[in-house]
Amino acid sequence: MSGLEVRVACQQIHPEVGQLERNRALTKEAVREAVAAGARLVVLPELSNSGYVFESAEEARACGEPADGATLRAWSEEAGQGDAVVVGGFCELGEDGLLYNSAAVVDGGGVLAVYRKLHLWDREQLVFEPGRDCAPVLETRVGRIGVGVCYDLNFPEVARGLALAGADIIVLPANFPGHPRPEGERPIEVTLAMATAHLNHVFAAVCDRCGDERGVEWVGGSVVCDEWGWILARPPEDGGPGMVVADCDFALARNKAWNERNDVFGDRRPELYRLDEPASIA
Amino acid sequence: MSGLEVRVACQQIHPEVGQLERNRALTKEAVREAVAAGARLVVLPELSNSGYVFESAEEARACGEPADGATLRAWSEEAGQGDAVVVGGFCELGEDGLLYNSAAVVDGGGVLAVYRKLHLWDREQLVFEPGRDCAPVLETRVGRIGVGVCYDLNFPEVARGLALAGADIIVLPANFPGHPRPEGERPIEVTLAMATAHLNHVFAAVCDRCGDERGVEWVGGSVVCDEWGWILARPPEDGGPGMVVADCDFALARNKAWNERNDVFGDRRPELYRLDEPASIA
Repeated sequence: MSGLEVRVACQQIHPEVGQLERNRALTKEAVREAVAAGARLVVLPELSNSGYVFESAEEARACGEPADGATLRAWSEEAGQGDAVVVGGFCELGEDGLLYNSAAVVDGGGVLAVYRKLHLWDREQLVFEPGRDCAPVLETRVGRIGVGVCYDLNFPEVARGLALAGADIIVLPANFPGHPRPEGERPIEVTLAMATAHLNHVFAAVCDRCGDERGVEWVGGSVVCDEWGWILARPPEDGGPGMVVADCDFALARNKAWNERNDVFGDRRPELYRLDEPASIA
Repeated sequence: MSGLEVRVACQQIHPEVGQLERNRALTKEAVREAVAAGARLVVLPELSNSGYVFESAEEARACGEPADGATLRAWSEEAGQGDAVVVGGFCELGEDGLLYNSAAVVDGGGVLAVYRKLHLWDREQLVFEPGRDCAPVLETRVGRIGVGVCYDLNFPEVARGLALAGADIIVLPANFPGHPRPEGERPIEVTLAMATAHLNHVFAAVCDRCGDERGVEWVGGSVVCDEWGWILARPPEDGGPGMVVADCDFALARNKAWNERNDVFGDRRPELYRLDEPASIA
């Protein structure tokens, strides 16, 4: 027993766009249910207070809530019932009057951090301001939590940075829109989550949404991976709502030795990585 | 027709440690067979001239060949039969007298480049000198080829750098030793290859070896992935030898737009990635 065993629950729920009261109640109940099941780290999808498929910037703006608003207070209240931490996506109206696609990290004492998504997908760019600060690692009562949101997963630099900064687990609220995929294949995002966990020897908890919204079908690709990248828990096969629960021993993510001679970080050769500007491509 | 269609063949073969003549004939025949099948990019496993499980540094050294030696000449000769390019791993005795775990890029005109593996796995460190130069991208007669070797795949910085430098395809000679994995799961290296291709929107060709060697069972995890990360070709289910062939249109890897608003490279926020030293972890 390392003292770092944490039950992690991703609540794959079905928000409805613009239904703030409904979504607040839905997310509050989702946190309550997870905490009652013993989860000490509860993850909610991206934009779980607002839904995703906005018809206009005005509609999105009308869904914006400040970080000290009713939704995050509700999460904090439920987190406090079980000494838990909640990471959830929300449509944030910043103190600067701008709208952000954010993830909050909340415990019973209130909001620990708000991360504003760095990489905006498609029409999000018409609605949200991109974040201006690095994805954070929080030292919390349940361990070191690295946070990203959805499309951030496509930038391996983000997860690498979180792992280098000490994350035990990378937590990612998401809304993955469906794309065609070969018969029998998992959503590519699940593959990305597995690779992210393996490459950085961290746990990963991706919480997707489910249901249709204005013609968009969501993947329902929530997953919890262990530090080798193997899947510990997945949602129901039907892609519907469900709680994806796994027990994780974060101590395992703090030992970065692959074997007696190799180390996840120690083997890096940063002086030989070329991560500057792209070549000019014909 | 983009003019960049290339048939790619990974030859998953079974070298035997220390059997230089046998392995040279085996690799030469493998290139010949692939070229005869129309492949214009032929990939061979890591250390395909020497085998892998050396009993001592002396045994490894006895397998070292210079880049202008008989093995690479044999590959060049066969490549020239079909205007092809060969990327193969070999045990290299450098002009400096040191031994390297290298990959050669060869065409009918001779050796285009030798890349020396940057990240040495486990006991390789007792035998080989690590490379001192970046993983390269070669502008070849079949397209822009980025090269790594085996464990380099665990460093997403390498593939990112190759893609940023313009690679159409990341080519990776490998020897993946077997590890336990959950029932029904692919080797994790295949998952890493898929993620690498998707994240960088490049093709990927990983050529593993097969067979046992001194108690090590090899995964036989060769794979060719398209620029979305989907598997185009895999080896026989029994993990035995085989040619893994796929037709790739490299033009697809040069369009880095995910959609009208998102771009694989353009969306990066390098100023907000923290890829320096690891945090001090308790």
